Amino acid sequence: MADDILDRYRESIDNIDAALIFMLAERFKITKAVGEHKAAAGLPAADPGREKVQIERLRTLAKSAHLDPDFSEKFLRFIIDEVIHHHRRAKATF
Amino acid sequence: MADDILDRYRESIDNIDAALIFMLAERFKITKAVGEHKAAAGLPAADPGREKVQIERLRTLAKSAHLDPDFSEKFLRFIIDEVIHHHRRAKATF
Repeated sequence: MADDILDRYRESIDNIDAALIFMLAERFKITKAVGEHKAAAGLPAADPGREKVQIERLRTLAKSAHLDPDFSEKFLRFIIDEVIHHHRRAKATF
Repeated sequence: MADDILDRYRESIDNIDAALIFMLAERFKITKAVGEHKAAAGLPAADPGREKVQIERLRTLAKSAHLDPDFSEKFLRFIIDEVIHHHRRAKATF
């Protein structure tokens, strides 16, 4: 059954998803560089203080965008878990 | 300890995270409209065929961006779970 309204919504969702994927790819490129830089500079991999600041900042941004702040925190943790997973995998290849 | 390189990386990560949050806010606005449209048109809430197409598309985009395709699939499921959670919460307020 043709549904032009639904099709238009789905086109927008697909555009946003593509943007999200490419943005995430760029983010992981940077966190990879951060991992390499920290290893070279002898800095610890984790930085709980930084993470706390990131969470607070994203919660504030989420509120201003009428997005659930709890979701923005869950989202950041989801991404950070993947970053840690990447770092572990990178170490395992040495 | 001042570390200009790390500071610059973190600035980029913060910029990308802000973009991700605003993009996600826009995506949830659209899925909310989709939910309302489906309810009004008497369409079923879930559409497994659509989800399959979305996953395949995102996996292909992820590969072209050198992002782990498994992660892109995990990411979409994470977002879809939140959409379902929103829809349930919206129903519960009626």
